[in-house]
Amino acid sequence: MRISERILNMPESPVRKMDGIASKVKESGINILHLNIGDPDIKTPDAFWQAIHNYKEPILGYGKSEGYPELIYAMQRYYKKFNLDFDYDELLITSGGSEALSLVLSTVCDYQEEIIVFEPFYTNYNGFADVTDVVPIAITTSSKNGFHLPAKEEITSKITPKTKAILFSNPGNPTGTIYTKEEIEMLADIALEHDLFIISDEVYREFVYDNLEYVSSASIDRIKDRVVIIDSISKRYSACGARVGSIASKNKELMKQILKICQNRLCTPTIDQVGAAALYNADQAFLDDVKEEYDNRRNLIYDELNGDPNISFIKPAGAFYLILDLDIEDAEHFVTWLLTEFNIDNETVMLAPAQGFYTHKEYGKKQVRLAYILDCNKLKRAAIIIKEGLKKYKELY
Amino acid sequence: MRISERILNMPESPVRKMDGIASKVKESGINILHLNIGDPDIKTPDAFWQAIHNYKEPILGYGKSEGYPELIYAMQRYYKKFNLDFDYDELLITSGGSEALSLVLSTVCDYQEEIIVFEPFYTNYNGFADVTDVVPIAITTSSKNGFHLPAKEEITSKITPKTKAILFSNPGNPTGTIYTKEEIEMLADIALEHDLFIISDEVYREFVYDNLEYVSSASIDRIKDRVVIIDSISKRYSACGARVGSIASKNKELMKQILKICQNRLCTPTIDQVGAAALYNADQAFLDDVKEEYDNRRNLIYDELNGDPNISFIKPAGAFYLILDLDIEDAEHFVTWLLTEFNIDNETVMLAPAQGFYTHKEYGKKQVRLAYILDCNKLKRAAIIIKEGLKKYKELY
Repeated sequence: MRISERILNMPESPVRKMDGIASKVKESGINILHLNIGDPDIKTPDAFWQAIHNYKEPILGYGKSEGYPELIYAMQRYYKKFNLDFDYDELLITSGGSEALSLVLSTVCDYQEEIIVFEPFYTNYNGFADVTDVVPIAITTSSKNGFHLPAKEEITSKITPKTKAILFSNPGNPTGTIYTKEEIEMLADIALEHDLFIISDEVYREFVYDNLEYVSSASIDRIKDRVVIIDSISKRYSACGARVGSIASKNKELMKQILKICQNRLCTPTIDQVGAAALYNADQAFLDDVKEEYDNRRNLIYDELNGDPNISFIKPAGAFYLILDLDIEDAEHFVTWLLTEFNIDNETVMLAPAQGFYTHKEYGKKQVRLAYILDCNKLKRAAIIIKEGLKKYKELY
Repeated sequence: MRISERILNMPESPVRKMDGIASKVKESGINILHLNIGDPDIKTPDAFWQAIHNYKEPILGYGKSEGYPELIYAMQRYYKKFNLDFDYDELLITSGGSEALSLVLSTVCDYQEEIIVFEPFYTNYNGFADVTDVVPIAITTSSKNGFHLPAKEEITSKITPKTKAILFSNPGNPTGTIYTKEEIEMLADIALEHDLFIISDEVYREFVYDNLEYVSSASIDRIKDRVVIIDSISKRYSACGARVGSIASKNKELMKQILKICQNRLCTPTIDQVGAAALYNADQAFLDDVKEEYDNRRNLIYDELNGDPNISFIKPAGAFYLILDLDIEDAEHFVTWLLTEFNIDNETVMLAPAQGFYTHKEYGKKQVRLAYILDCNKLKRAAIIIKEGLKKYKELY
């Protein structure tokens, strides 16, 4: 029996492949500060649990393939707050943003067709592309200008007759970058001129700091039939384990085709959607508080790491990630070493090597992604461990 | 923007595509007895709800990609009852049997590679194959011999260098057929001789009547590294809306590769898995009672429909479906007519046209699938509506 090439060629998740090592480190009595994965430490709102604990039907039968209606209504109201208007049949509920991305790639691309991505990009885009036999074509962005987009010509030079879409996250994972209105308008122009879809992963929409203007791709009227919005409650409401995501698009034909795949997999879990509906219906105060908390963490981690001779980075304006350029040769080696060989008072830090966020691996070789998803006290300890660890590591290697 | 051919070519779910019509019929005040979909009316056990209502964590973070450990342990114990032995890393929890099937097809087949299926087969196999660019090659079985397998040569004649696996459900959906030990042994021989995987969809394992011997593909030792078992709590525990399925295989390399895809989509919902673990840990009595109930329904529907001049079928020995051969030209037309134009005391019946369960559509043109998932009183009324409806329909067309 031969296993498929598409899966054999698929890389292990750079975020998860060190989980085995981490388990052993924990067993040896070392506390790990996990900054390697975007799994927030913010409490899931009680509204979620209350809704679930109040929910009981005699028979937990199949739900609707498009999603739990109350959740779709709640999301319609949620989008209205951003002046985004989606009809009922322009929304589909999915098993997390993950399923949403897979469904869209399958529906937009045939075998070996291409999507434009901006590296470093959310690493799992690679995996979704592998499974769907789609080829990500990466345009490299640089830490030097905060990972903003290159000139239009550099982007269009990579477009071929096989290109079907541009895929990006905004606010950016792993960069924290917020694209300006000009950047979104430029992508809109490219989509129009080259007949492409825009797949806009906006799961970090709430996390925009410094009073920056946030421009959703869905707000650009002239490409409204080309835009597909990926969303999720995971980060927004600190409910990663509920696996509730969504697809929104004004392109009804596209949505109708995606619905066929949804019907084929029948439905997503009802109970988690009941919880998610309660979250979207809940008070805005939670989101405001969470944003303030992440902003504080961002300021703290910036103040702690800024100026360290072995680390360079630009303060990002969104999401809860940052990419650090380290003055070493091999960030993956450093991350493993930090996890297994270094600790302060029996505590160490786990980071994500950034190579997995690139197609051109060499550009990420000296970088790590840090998710500031722990409280300020822990982040402060983590910063010290990273700085001291780097100093020690550089003496050794 | 062009939508992918693979999704454009994907047929609408034959089980769900009439949902829109059904909604309108209901709005007009007609009660529909839904025998078109395997969505049981049996109460979901309280153990499920209790576990969920007792579960609360401060943060609903990501779960493990392979599944909730307590559920994996519970499934190991469950399989032991059938003398099937799976290590922890030989089990993966999925979003229903649906995701399980997609994951396995992606991992076993590359673009345009083939799987052998026996038609009529579970219609959604078509959709999973479309999305993964896999080609189902159907070998037709006949209602005349209860949809048992044809001779070995007929099966092997369809095997090409591109064939990677044989996929079937046993007990069968939509046929209710239980394969004999000889049939499973024959498939094992074919898998060995032609280097194929066996993808054995055993979600109806509990529903075997007439004291028939049930032979799981996983019990055949000489192909243990070739067998992949698809499972689900949906029918077993009447919890279709929980979306908890699983993959089990002694082929550790295969499981390792599937785990990579699971890591890429992060995890399945924790809460539903907590409920599922409670179900697998619960008393066997529920399963025994449910089986007895379905057996009673099977006997009733058999007695009611057997002998009708317009219906022919063989009494099936498993699952909760049967395929009826109708003495008409176009079963889909009849199903629509029955739903929209016929009722007795403002009540009608919805069936699934069988064409969607075939690759060679012409063989299913006069057939419907009936799911006996309503109680005996309703089934009795449904049988009368079907018989009277058929009589009337034949006068009209």
